[in-house]
Amino acid sequence: MSGMWTVKVLSLGVVALFLGVELLGRLLRRLRPPVTLNEVLFFPSEVACVEHVFTSLSPRSCLCPLPHGAETSLSRLLHRILSTSSSLDLCVFAFSNVNLSRAVLALHARGVTVRVLTDKHYVAIPGSQIGVLRKAGICARYDASSVHMHHKFALVDGRLLVTGSLNWTQTAVQSNMENVLVTEEPDLVRPFIEEFHRLWESNDPARCLRPK
Amino acid sequence: MSGMWTVKVLSLGVVALFLGVELLGRLLRRLRPPVTLNEVLFFPSEVACVEHVFTSLSPRSCLCPLPHGAETSLSRLLHRILSTSSSLDLCVFAFSNVNLSRAVLALHARGVTVRVLTDKHYVAIPGSQIGVLRKAGICARYDASSVHMHHKFALVDGRLLVTGSLNWTQTAVQSNMENVLVTEEPDLVRPFIEEFHRLWESNDPARCLRPK
Repeated sequence: MSGMWTVKVLSLGVVALFLGVELLGRLLRRLRPPVTLNEVLFFPSEVACVEHVFTSLSPRSCLCPLPHGAETSLSRLLHRILSTSSSLDLCVFAFSNVNLSRAVLALHARGVTVRVLTDKHYVAIPGSQIGVLRKAGICARYDASSVHMHHKFALVDGRLLVTGSLNWTQTAVQSNMENVLVTEEPDLVRPFIEEFHRLWESNDPARCLRPK
Repeated sequence: MSGMWTVKVLSLGVVALFLGVELLGRLLRRLRPPVTLNEVLFFPSEVACVEHVFTSLSPRSCLCPLPHGAETSLSRLLHRILSTSSSLDLCVFAFSNVNLSRAVLALHARGVTVRVLTDKHYVAIPGSQIGVLRKAGICARYDASSVHMHHKFALVDGRLLVTGSLNWTQTAVQSNMENVLVTEEPDLVRPFIEEFHRLWESNDPARCLRPK
């Protein structure tokens, strides 16, 4: 009887041990912090063809004279922007970079909701892409106050923040020393979502530059 | 004998249970991710006296005509900069804000190692604080290339990154719509440390603007 009892207790102990280990494993998996995307890009970006970012073609299939196949800060930035699936909120002081404009237009064409906030002084400078976006049907508002709307950030699907010193211009991308942070960190993303909402709402919708 | 054996097994079980709970508690405390500082400041900053940031006096003890006692984006930024204990690496396109200059000078006076990288085009514009810093003995280097060194970031003690759209100018702080991120997130801080080091080293030390 005593031997039987010992076997029973030991068996129960072994079962409890296995259950405990399994439970601990599940707990640890739950407690492991989720991987949060954090990336920093520095500019000027290496000069290279970015055609493959917009198409499914191999980088080598483009016949333009630029170097091919290199992953650059610009191609990384374009990838992040083009990863948008539902909404892109863009708040940018100056916007003249044709590749970034092409990315925004591509998102709009595939049904992504795009909203653009820009600075009134830079809305119509030569090379500004704001008119191009307007003509495609993208709603662009500008801050009409006398000061500069100097932000340069984008919110991808309300979860990914792209921000930094980089204006979305040719010079900034190709020549200047600049930085762009890409982060999913909620404590950083949330305030920018609120700021975009505040700025978007504080501009009279009558000022919305609708397509002609 | 059987009763005694049961008591022994149960006692061991209880001890094992307590040890298991204690071990689990320790594991959970270890696995809990450390609290990482993440803060976003938006500008223009509310106009208010910041004298109390530089002194141990009560905000109300200042007799200047500005509003007192308000915590503003500028006062938060000054607090972050003044929290430096060993090194401040500053990489900023334009620097004319006298309060931010006063903070950097205060750090230098208390023995903090301050290094300043700036843009050659803005190094000597009217109101630039770079000359003031130089005269105090702070080493300021500038990028001598033909393009803009357009960064606006600071590294506090090599662990805290302060970056965003905000140039360290009076207009940016008082008038523009701007943002500043403050983060300890290592994946964001590390690349900026490396970039500062690269830029600092890539500028010929002979170009270092030493005090006259």
